[in-house]
Amino acid sequence: MKLTILGCYAATPRTLTNPTAQVLEIKNETFLIDCGEATQVQLRKSKVKFSKIDHIFISHLHGDHLYGLIGLVSTFMLLSRTNDLHIYGPKGIKEIITLQLRLSNSWTNYGLFFHELESERSEVVYETDKVLVRTIPLRHRIYTNGYLFEEKVGEKKLNVEAVKRLQIPVYEYQNVKNGKDVTLDDGTFIENHRLTLEPDAPKSYAFCSDTVYHEALLPIINGVDVLYHESTFLESEAALAEKTMHSTAKQAAAIAHQANVKQLILGHYSTRYGDIGLFEAEAKTIFPNVHLADDGKTFEF
Amino acid sequence: MKLTILGCYAATPRTLTNPTAQVLEIKNETFLIDCGEATQVQLRKSKVKFSKIDHIFISHLHGDHLYGLIGLVSTFMLLSRTNDLHIYGPKGIKEIITLQLRLSNSWTNYGLFFHELESERSEVVYETDKVLVRTIPLRHRIYTNGYLFEEKVGEKKLNVEAVKRLQIPVYEYQNVKNGKDVTLDDGTFIENHRLTLEPDAPKSYAFCSDTVYHEALLPIINGVDVLYHESTFLESEAALAEKTMHSTAKQAAAIAHQANVKQLILGHYSTRYGDIGLFEAEAKTIFPNVHLADDGKTFEF
Repeated sequence: MKLTILGCYAATPRTLTNPTAQVLEIKNETFLIDCGEATQVQLRKSKVKFSKIDHIFISHLHGDHLYGLIGLVSTFMLLSRTNDLHIYGPKGIKEIITLQLRLSNSWTNYGLFFHELESERSEVVYETDKVLVRTIPLRHRIYTNGYLFEEKVGEKKLNVEAVKRLQIPVYEYQNVKNGKDVTLDDGTFIENHRLTLEPDAPKSYAFCSDTVYHEALLPIINGVDVLYHESTFLESEAALAEKTMHSTAKQAAAIAHQANVKQLILGHYSTRYGDIGLFEAEAKTIFPNVHLADDGKTFEF
Repeated sequence: MKLTILGCYAATPRTLTNPTAQVLEIKNETFLIDCGEATQVQLRKSKVKFSKIDHIFISHLHGDHLYGLIGLVSTFMLLSRTNDLHIYGPKGIKEIITLQLRLSNSWTNYGLFFHELESERSEVVYETDKVLVRTIPLRHRIYTNGYLFEEKVGEKKLNVEAVKRLQIPVYEYQNVKNGKDVTLDDGTFIENHRLTLEPDAPKSYAFCSDTVYHEALLPIINGVDVLYHESTFLESEAALAEKTMHSTAKQAAAIAHQANVKQLILGHYSTRYGDIGLFEAEAKTIFPNVHLADDGKTFEF
């Protein structure tokens, strides 16, 4: 599981900082999460292949999470995309994109599907045999969802040493990974557990931005491997965080601690602070395993 | 008159090239012309004061001329703008901006006025005692206007040497500039023309992007000081220019020549060409006074 931070600063794009967008690569799928202005430029800088993005998840309709989407949809047209593109986001997102396409007389040459959200409860929005994505209802000034990405338990792994020693034919390997026992030509019966190792533990990633301190999300994100939680402010601006329905670094850490997550990544920093190290220091007073997002940074789990 | 090129490349924003946007400073007014994605970042890089922009002119509703507008409107809110903002552009532009503001529950704290255009004829869209702006109907795949910015004839200039030699009292200076004759206390009568110089010749700037080769614009731009004309392609791609309703460098130069303009600036280059010097070389075969726009470049006339 690889996370690329394209942008992680609040409010407006600036010369050196970008609004929210990230790419999550998990089980060979590439998901784009939020799409602030000029995300397509950040994608190019990070050398993410445009053609690998088939699913885009938008948290809410504030500009610093959205205004790059129409440009990306248009650029996909210019790049002669043929794959379907699926966009998940709050009700209204379809009208925003299609109005602009209609008025520019530009229709996509690929399938463009909108999955509009309006539930206040967590719901599964995407599922394959390898990955499941569900919403994390957040509390912000407008309707907002985070997203939880969970790998499913994979197939068992071949115990390479054992299959060689017991001379299992190669054509049986997939059956073994699927959990089957093996009977050799000479009648020897070998139980599956002797030939396999348990699959890697499935990983999970929770994206929570933007939100006020909100304990209702604890059961949904409990025990995730990695939590990205917004920390627009420091605790010294707690009143401002409450008023604008954002969180402080300390509050993000309190959520991470109570949800028993393994790692916390902070982001969505207000640009009023010169040094983002302040966010890490504040969060670490509550929760030890803290990382700082920054534009262009990648994390591998 | 000062022109700052924020972006002058066709189609999509890339790591090193930006879509169309320019700032024209004329008679102490600052006009933004077109607003491709991430124009606000380019404004910051060029150190243009956001608060000086009160009028934005949009040529057409293709994304590479428009997608930065909603972000700029939003950033003006965050910057606590109070001045009215006027946006001139094709019918539909108001719906695009207000839909996004409504769905993000974000209303401007400043007056936001839309001047929607749908005429096929040139019309005056802005006028003060110093500057006049009129549309230049262009021919492109969708409804498109260029804009002609004209200084008005200014007041006469004081002949500093003459007013000192003839001992004209300082309180008469403004009257002299307004064209009045002067009678001194000793009865001496001095005609105005002895005390003044003719005002600077008024300057004019024509912005023409995007358009196919279109002779109908010749009478509107005849004799302008500076013509910016798109040259998306070279003559080797003339058929593609015709098909996509863009111009070649040679065609831009032919327009400049026939319209008797003083200087031609080329821009809106397709990124297929590695060297924009090719555009200059091609145009100079038809018209000598050619300049190349480039992102971040400024021109003073």
